[in-house]
Amino acid sequence: MKIITREQIERVLPAIDLLPAIEDGFAAYSEGRAVVPPVGELLLDKGEVHIKYGYIKGEDYYVIKIASGFHRNSALGLPSGNGAMLLYRQETGELACVLFDEGYLTDVRTAVAGAIAAKYLAPRNVERIGIVGTGVQARLQLRYLDAVTGCREVLAWGRGKEQLVRYREELSKTGYDVKITSNAGDLLDECNLIVTTTPTQTPLLEAAGLRPGTHITAIGSDTPQKQELEAEILSLADVVVADSIEQCLLRGEIHRAVKAGCFDHGDAVELGDVITGRVTGRTSEDQITVADLTGVAVQDIKIAEAVFQALT
Amino acid sequence: MKIITREQIERVLPAIDLLPAIEDGFAAYSEGRAVVPPVGELLLDKGEVHIKYGYIKGEDYYVIKIASGFHRNSALGLPSGNGAMLLYRQETGELACVLFDEGYLTDVRTAVAGAIAAKYLAPRNVERIGIVGTGVQARLQLRYLDAVTGCREVLAWGRGKEQLVRYREELSKTGYDVKITSNAGDLLDECNLIVTTTPTQTPLLEAAGLRPGTHITAIGSDTPQKQELEAEILSLADVVVADSIEQCLLRGEIHRAVKAGCFDHGDAVELGDVITGRVTGRTSEDQITVADLTGVAVQDIKIAEAVFQALT
Repeated sequence: MKIITREQIERVLPAIDLLPAIEDGFAAYSEGRAVVPPVGELLLDKGEVHIKYGYIKGEDYYVIKIASGFHRNSALGLPSGNGAMLLYRQETGELACVLFDEGYLTDVRTAVAGAIAAKYLAPRNVERIGIVGTGVQARLQLRYLDAVTGCREVLAWGRGKEQLVRYREELSKTGYDVKITSNAGDLLDECNLIVTTTPTQTPLLEAAGLRPGTHITAIGSDTPQKQELEAEILSLADVVVADSIEQCLLRGEIHRAVKAGCFDHGDAVELGDVITGRVTGRTSEDQITVADLTGVAVQDIKIAEAVFQALT
Repeated sequence: MKIITREQIERVLPAIDLLPAIEDGFAAYSEGRAVVPPVGELLLDKGEVHIKYGYIKGEDYYVIKIASGFHRNSALGLPSGNGAMLLYRQETGELACVLFDEGYLTDVRTAVAGAIAAKYLAPRNVERIGIVGTGVQARLQLRYLDAVTGCREVLAWGRGKEQLVRYREELSKTGYDVKITSNAGDLLDECNLIVTTTPTQTPLLEAAGLRPGTHITAIGSDTPQKQELEAEILSLADVVVADSIEQCLLRGEIHRAVKAGCFDHGDAVELGDVITGRVTGRTSEDQITVADLTGVAVQDIKIAEAVFQALT
């Protein structure tokens, strides 16, 4: 049994081609080859813990992921999020490794899913990338989009001026030409690949400004309450893709739009099916596409396995 | 964060007074101070995994226990059971330690629960201890009963002659005078403290032979199917104690007896309530008492905490 630290993970990740690994995970999920029981939840006075677990039939490992959020930790100088993944052999139940990633692999697999969505759904010619938010995902999404688009123009929106300026400074050093705006509507005007990464419950992007040929990947909403896109955006979209249709009916943008009566859930298709070609994604440059990503355990399984294999 | 191995655990356990720790756990459970969500379950082709987790309100830690059973492992020379416990701080979600106990702490906390049941329910004068089964629990129960009864006479029953003889040889070296029998009914005749430890689905102890003044602790049945005691035994008992009434209605001896129409579930009392004195256990030497132990997460919480504290 191997103990893998966050430092080891950060060191090895750049050498791993995560996109095909996680695409395989989404494909397995949509093909019904993944076993993913309901998420376990432990609520405490000062935080909450989620336990996600599952496996892909016929493959080598099963994964148990423990992730926690303790939001008052920052006052103590501690990270609010924490986590670990345990990788076990399907044949024998032997523990292959524990990845003490402190939640980092969840951040990365979420960013990789955004890159996969862009790879299959963004228009061929991305003029400018719009980023809504200035947090961890706003950073990581750009890092992983790097491999799937040649576009290096970015327009970022954030609520806090200071964070927004810091975001521009920091991301400008990574090969992107980053501009910032205090008006989220500007992103709809100037960008045709937009990634939303905030925990807002009040939509930030309005349907009125939506242009043909835009792709939006919504990352931030992963609860029944959170919503970054005005519900009408989904009714205007030609293709709406969910990482998990089942889960997106309970939380995220699709859930909100169905609830608002703006979207028929039968109209969503699944990312894994787009990847395998079982259903078509974008078929022309002027279509509007939306990907609603709420996070599924196959991403955890695949990234844990990839890191373990790279270190063995 | 501390990594604790099975060897470290085995070395430190004899120095820890586990009974009061686990009694505290049962008391907290029965007083409604424990938060124990439903068990997570992952079923695979060759095995199954259970994830138990919970905490006691106002205390220091929460615990996540991962336990697996892969029954074909023995053919590969591997243990069929495996497990680990993770101990986290309730205040911050920080991981305090991982106990790679390989399931050993589950075995021990189960044996300690048997000792607690005997402490509160067995007649004062134990003539002879009856042990049904010859496996791990048949061994560990005797080890932990040592502290709660002066009786050193044992009569053991097992299905396999060879295992039974080996059991006698082995346990005779631990200070007990062990006799064996191939007739389980002999235990009812000769013993007034009986512990049943098998996974049978066909009852081994029959109500017909039950004598006044007997206490039986049923350890083996922890599923809806398993049953070691004929259901009528529970209807003859003056006191029937469950580690968790809620759980014992779904699995174990009480579940079986209620299903057979031999027992009214309202008549069961909870071990934690007997410990705190909120309800009475045995009130005279000639009463018949039964304890149905199916295993609750507070036992895991308390033993993990005790081991961690002893090693810190």
